[in-house]
Amino acid sequence: MSETNKANTVAFHTKAVFEGDVATAFRLYGGTPYRQHNPLIGDGEEGLRKFVAAMRASRPDAHGEIKRVFADGDYVILHVHNVPTPGSRGNAIVDIFRLENGKVVEHWDVRQEIPEQSANSNTMF
Amino acid sequence: MSETNKANTVAFHTKAVFEGDVATAFRLYGGTPYRQHNPLIGDGEEGLRKFVAAMRASRPDAHGEIKRVFADGDYVILHVHNVPTPGSRGNAIVDIFRLENGKVVEHWDVRQEIPEQSANSNTMF
Repeated sequence: MSETNKANTVAFHTKAVFEGDVATAFRLYGGTPYRQHNPLIGDGEEGLRKFVAAMRASRPDAHGEIKRVFADGDYVILHVHNVPTPGSRGNAIVDIFRLENGKVVEHWDVRQEIPEQSANSNTMF
Repeated sequence: MSETNKANTVAFHTKAVFEGDVATAFRLYGGTPYRQHNPLIGDGEEGLRKFVAAMRASRPDAHGEIKRVFADGDYVILHVHNVPTPGSRGNAIVDIFRLENGKVVEHWDVRQEIPEQSANSNTMF
């Protein structure tokens, strides 16, 4: 089940956030109700649709890359590098998803701007 | 192994960060080399010791609570609520640890201040 959950979550996130097709993401991989914990996003498919549309309008050249995928039971965790503007350092993000029967039904995340200076040479990834 | 990794990581983080005893955390649960990806912290036990000492000096009343623990193979993920100053909203943090033979050897994290307003009523946890 963990491998299915990983694949479905990566497909959901890629379709909804990277490709901007929230409707297809929910039709194929999302469940109802969809409980949202990101404070900038309203609950449900409609909340995510509005947020992604606004993001794509303001940052049309944004790029995201999933660096790591973890799964534990009904939870999948993504470690993501998001670059809103080409050439910028961008953000480190961890997304946590809860699934029910292989469908994504809940989302938490934490986002941090990557600073210019670091006390180590290992990068945030 | 996942349950052992979870227990060792929670014990390491509690001892090092919540109790400030980095030396004991490494003696019991840490490995060498310890690769650090938090840009504010230097590599190794010494880097974490300096960071925790500075944090405890500037925020003596800080409080942390582990909300969720996940494990996948050699990785353990903690979802943490950190309150640097009593009564403040604090930060949402996700810590990712890599273990070797049950010892913590690598750390990434992402930290975000919890905003006053939210587009949903679910909290960041």
